[in-house]
Amino acid sequence: MIAADSTQTNSAAVLRPGGSFYYEDRELPVIQSDRDVIVKIIATGLCGSDVHYWQHGRIGRYVVEKPLILGHESTGVVVSCGSKAEGIAVGDRVALEPGVACNTCQACRRGRYNLCRDMRFAATPPIDGTLCTYYRVPAECCFKLPAHISLSQGALVEPLSVAVHACRLAGDMQTKSVIVFGAGPVGLLCCAVACAFGASTVVAVDIVSSRLTVASKYGATHTYQMQDASPEVNAVDLLRAARVEDGADVILDATGAEPCIVCGLHAVAPGGTFIQVGLGRPSVTLPIGQVCDKEVTVKGSFRYGPGDFQTAIGLLDARRVNLDGLVTNEYTFSQVEEAFQNVANRVGIKSVIYGPGVEAEMANSVAA
Amino acid sequence: MIAADSTQTNSAAVLRPGGSFYYEDRELPVIQSDRDVIVKIIATGLCGSDVHYWQHGRIGRYVVEKPLILGHESTGVVVSCGSKAEGIAVGDRVALEPGVACNTCQACRRGRYNLCRDMRFAATPPIDGTLCTYYRVPAECCFKLPAHISLSQGALVEPLSVAVHACRLAGDMQTKSVIVFGAGPVGLLCCAVACAFGASTVVAVDIVSSRLTVASKYGATHTYQMQDASPEVNAVDLLRAARVEDGADVILDATGAEPCIVCGLHAVAPGGTFIQVGLGRPSVTLPIGQVCDKEVTVKGSFRYGPGDFQTAIGLLDARRVNLDGLVTNEYTFSQVEEAFQNVANRVGIKSVIYGPGVEAEMANSVAA
Amino acid sequence: MIAADSTQTNSAAVLRPGGSFYYEDRELPVIQSDRDVIVKIIATGLCGSDVHYWQHGRIGRYVVEKPLILGHESTGVVVSCGSKAEGIAVGDRVALEPGVACNTCQACRRGRYNLCRDMRFAATPPIDGTLCTYYRVPAECCFKLPAHISLSQGALVEPLSVAVHACRLAGDMQTKSVIVFGAGPVGLLCCAVACAFGASTVVAVDIVSSRLTVASKYGATHTYQMQDASPEVNAVDLLRAARVEDGADVILDATGAEPCIVCGLHAVAPGGTFIQVGLGRPSVTLPIGQVCDKEVTVKGSFRYGPGDFQTAIGLLDARRVNLDGLVTNEYTFSQVEEAFQNVANRVGIKSVIYGPGVEAEMANSVAA
Amino acid sequence: MIAADSTQTNSAAVLRPGGSFYYEDRELPVIQSDRDVIVKIIATGLCGSDVHYWQHGRIGRYVVEKPLILGHESTGVVVSCGSKAEGIAVGDRVALEPGVACNTCQACRRGRYNLCRDMRFAATPPIDGTLCTYYRVPAECCFKLPAHISLSQGALVEPLSVAVHACRLAGDMQTKSVIVFGAGPVGLLCCAVACAFGASTVVAVDIVSSRLTVASKYGATHTYQMQDASPEVNAVDLLRAARVEDGADVILDATGAEPCIVCGLHAVAPGGTFIQVGLGRPSVTLPIGQVCDKEVTVKGSFRYGPGDFQTAIGLLDARRVNLDGLVTNEYTFSQVEEAFQNVANRVGIKSVIYGPGVEAEMANSVAA
Repeated sequence: MIAADSTQTNSAAVLRPGGSFYYEDRELPVIQSDRDVIVKIIATGLCGSDVHYWQHGRIGRYVVEKPLILGHESTGVVVSCGSKAEGIAVGDRVALEPGVACNTCQACRRGRYNLCRDMRFAATPPIDGTLCTYYRVPAECCFKLPAHISLSQGALVEPLSVAVHACRLAGDMQTKSVIVFGAGPVGLLCCAVACAFGASTVVAVDIVSSRLTVASKYGATHTYQMQDASPEVNAVDLLRAARVEDGADVILDATGAEPCIVCGLHAVAPGGTFIQVGLGRPSVTLPIGQVCDKEVTVKGSFRYGPGDFQTAIGLLDARRVNLDGLVTNEYTFSQVEEAFQNVANRVGIKSVIYGPGVEAEMANSVAA
Repeated sequence: MIAADSTQTNSAAVLRPGGSFYYEDRELPVIQSDRDVIVKIIATGLCGSDVHYWQHGRIGRYVVEKPLILGHESTGVVVSCGSKAEGIAVGDRVALEPGVACNTCQACRRGRYNLCRDMRFAATPPIDGTLCTYYRVPAECCFKLPAHISLSQGALVEPLSVAVHACRLAGDMQTKSVIVFGAGPVGLLCCAVACAFGASTVVAVDIVSSRLTVASKYGATHTYQMQDASPEVNAVDLLRAARVEDGADVILDATGAEPCIVCGLHAVAPGGTFIQVGLGRPSVTLPIGQVCDKEVTVKGSFRYGPGDFQTAIGLLDARRVNLDGLVTNEYTFSQVEEAFQNVANRVGIKSVIYGPGVEAEMANSVAA
Repeated sequence: MIAADSTQTNSAAVLRPGGSFYYEDRELPVIQSDRDVIVKIIATGLCGSDVHYWQHGRIGRYVVEKPLILGHESTGVVVSCGSKAEGIAVGDRVALEPGVACNTCQACRRGRYNLCRDMRFAATPPIDGTLCTYYRVPAECCFKLPAHISLSQGALVEPLSVAVHACRLAGDMQTKSVIVFGAGPVGLLCCAVACAFGASTVVAVDIVSSRLTVASKYGATHTYQMQDASPEVNAVDLLRAARVEDGADVILDATGAEPCIVCGLHAVAPGGTFIQVGLGRPSVTLPIGQVCDKEVTVKGSFRYGPGDFQTAIGLLDARRVNLDGLVTNEYTFSQVEEAFQNVANRVGIKSVIYGPGVEAEMANSVAA
Repeated sequence: MIAADSTQTNSAAVLRPGGSFYYEDRELPVIQSDRDVIVKIIATGLCGSDVHYWQHGRIGRYVVEKPLILGHESTGVVVSCGSKAEGIAVGDRVALEPGVACNTCQACRRGRYNLCRDMRFAATPPIDGTLCTYYRVPAECCFKLPAHISLSQGALVEPLSVAVHACRLAGDMQTKSVIVFGAGPVGLLCCAVACAFGASTVVAVDIVSSRLTVASKYGATHTYQMQDASPEVNAVDLLRAARVEDGADVILDATGAEPCIVCGLHAVAPGGTFIQVGLGRPSVTLPIGQVCDKEVTVKGSFRYGPGDFQTAIGLLDARRVNLDGLVTNEYTFSQVEEAFQNVANRVGIKSVIYGPGVEAEMANSVAA
């Protein structure tokens, strides 16, 4: 059994402002509120934002001004919990929601806690992330993994929740056509969720053909490689390829790249919806005339909100989303720098770093 | 009494491809379907699109390739109607909805007839508009004017419906803050509708200070003149001026101008809504990062849909929207070219052209 | 090839006011509008309402006052179509939407054509139904069948659309719990659609255990036989059986029976939704206190609306709903009275009557 | 200045199980969390539920098993606040939201905190209410009163929020027709909010004609006294009286009385909405056939949720809802029993009890 006791240490991989990692022991987290849960971290997936902080020291207004622990796509095993951590018990295999909302501001109270102004989000300066031995979260941020999902695969629950949130914002997808730009982890999971949400046509689009080869395993009914042509020409081509000449009902852009956004707005059907999933460049030039003439709804999708982790878990539980093959690279805790370097070099699909002392066997075992 | 009989003529002001107007007699319209209504046109407001066709011969893919009658913001008196033109009678003073939808395509059937692919919209090539003596519309495009609204003022029902549609797309406005960019006819009517829809704060924004002076008559609680500064600085300034430092719940852009769109996206609150009302330039550079980070909903608003004319009439009926003073210039039918020239020169707020033979006294009389 | 020509006759099974059927030749339907389609009827499913008209001569305010042709769940083959029957061609195997809306009233224009006051609905007095050789519908009421669906099975597209409409009214079902009362054709199809729409738990409930045995083939994850106990006790029991002790997110009642409605309102979770699918008794005694305390949304579901037939077809096309085994009884056109008698005696699940001259082989063949 | 210090006492009016009131000093509430606020109670409105607990000792599953302080419609002055009670300062005149939600359960997180299972609601056993000197609430339950609203009138903010919540559930009311059953405080406030929300027709309905006489001061455009006839006949009559023969778009029932509910379901238009505001009898017999045929949406409205108090305050701030004349009876703290007796006898519209030691002059003064 796993337990946090005074003889144990909380080893952490810390990013130094300026850019290199070092390891140090941090204070062991303790139960502060009766809803707190202490989790021993087993696996943490690496996200583009982690790598961006490492390479550039900032994302927008968030700057790495003092040493910061990165990592926020994590799973672990509960080692301790407060008296009111309802539904959570020591030993539970859990995925973590990395954002701790204040729960009392107006955004939180009206059910949009991802817009909480006092959000404390793991690995967003100055809040430390999960590349450490033990981590404390409130009970509402712990989600039990289905028995057939390993703790390593479970690191994908966070990006899966990003995809769930984006697909929900897009509204009813039953028997509709959906185009997903970008075939990285989030894009592939958007394909998978769109398929699970009932889309009849799911087109995965990328500029790199090799990334498209796996898309059909994750719900894509069609793939389209962006051609060296204008976004308008690409839009016509891809609609023809997917046999939705009148336009796609939903566009999900998981690239942030201007050519994709422009192509998407030309490809969306009248009355359709365009979801910008996560961040790209701060500013893009886009065909606003298309938005007006076709009365398109464009929504930004920011992280996830109420019910998204539950739905992600539910989709896995019912085996309606398949994660097999998405975790392509696994690293031990001593290999943090190597892992970041490989992700920066676009090696594989999703890379996972084990927690301190965790072995592959444990990370990859399932409950049942 | 007004009647269409065989001794009458249908005089029309026709735009010649290339740009000048000429007058000619057209065939008298006749009842073709039992839901048809023939209206003697009393007043037609001029819209930016009319002037654009006159000056440039096209708007996007719509090109003036053969002689075209302009005008689509019209009122008139019913002179004849089919046996199933339910609720409409000869003599009724009506505002006209200028778009005749097919009513059977999927967009129409699901309640979004403004996206009808077979839409026949007055004064959009090759469909003739209303600058003529008689015009035929189906019964669903006739709306009885309140008794206290003159046929001249009634020409504003069409742009008022544009404002109603845009405000509806923005969702619940009760006690919210709304910023309207552009203080032309549509912008002012957006202010008026936002106020009627319960907004507590309505900020009219324009680059020309003189256009802002009347805004308070039409619902604006604050005005803001765009300064010679960045959109970001203008956003901070205007939020401070309106005392909504946390951002405005709703932005309505009735300019299509890039600085306004950028300013609006910086000014919108987290979780807020941005409505692009009508057309501007086909392409703009905008801060997509703001859309993502704040999970903004951006919607294009195109013309109007189910219930919008009814609501516009209802707002007038209950005297919740005030049109007094908006029609600043009136012209007889012989002055079409002069009217277009003055609108092109931005004279006044809304210009109205009377139908052939119509006098000011009649156009300005009310029913009660 | 099938064609309607002057040498053919339009044989019909006609219900005489008072109750017996007779056969007679009716006038051949002809193309009246350029959007009209003439269909040779191949199969018609029998619905509870058909049997009710036969047995009782009326449903509510609809009275069989003169001879009436029943039948409205039909498929057929297109034999002729008008010049603007877009997307429909002679020879197409189609399911028919039996309600012809006016498309111009306010309900139609705002996308709720099932509430059209001028609706002409097949087999609802005084509008004749489809138990005849040829039937005329407008193009928007023809839906091409997937190749793997026989014309006999296709008769289920209409009740499937009823289920789609009801499930849509219930809102997002992803990973939610749904209870369906009634395991007749509509109830089973509600189970199937709830499953396709992503519900994690689908409980089929009936008072007759034999009807529940097939439910798992159509999406039910659990079944529950109503016990001889109070609705409250049954609610607790069935929630426990389905392991949704906190209540079900969605209740679909396809029985109209008071004990089921009461049980459902006790079983629905706080904030949940209860859909009354179709008709039961005009008046029931129900626990309105449950509706208030739990802030339940109760909606009546009436027939189907925009997109429902398209979605039904889409679900079949993607093989996400399985119809196999639902058509349990098939009759030739000469056996109309026998068919009605058997349905009245609750024989089988769904009974289908072939059109005049149609053989089983043809009705049961598929396109591919 | 008002301050809570150790020399002060917390006098309370306590309901003894079985039914009589007694006064006693309770412990002074203290700041426990840094978001806590201590309020000196100035005025408390009496609600039907308070009187019901006094007369019957229970409401449904909530039983007065030990001494209970009643009162939950309160205003007061802030005497102390924690370090993170953002936006609240000592001396603020505030209305109190009487329900303290857990803010972390699923219902709270998804923006429906009125369905919180751990809700602590003032004057609902075993949680004490506000008929005392000092009361503690978290900052999110304090709402600053507009300067022109007295603390006595401010006691109406709570029932006004009930009306806001109910009207919001009804959806867009712009230029629509609304019927409100019941002309007590909640019914009259529903009329006022429906009018503020843009309804063109607002019909106040009651069985007692004298209660209808004031309705026009609070937004009613029509009144209707229920006649000694069937609900169906009353429905036809009242629709005719209000000139909405095709049915009302929205029904708000603030009576819970079966004849009103039945009448309302007959009076609602196809596609309309029926809101059950608060509690009546646990069970009623209602025309479910009307709900189905007209595809009516019926919703229970339970207390209030996110933004409702803010909107209520906003409506008062903008003087869009008029409270003048609604507080008809005021009592000092020593007159609690008399106040309850008069409310039980249906004296006046709204009765208010001052806090211990509070005089009329203070309760009725305004800030500006």
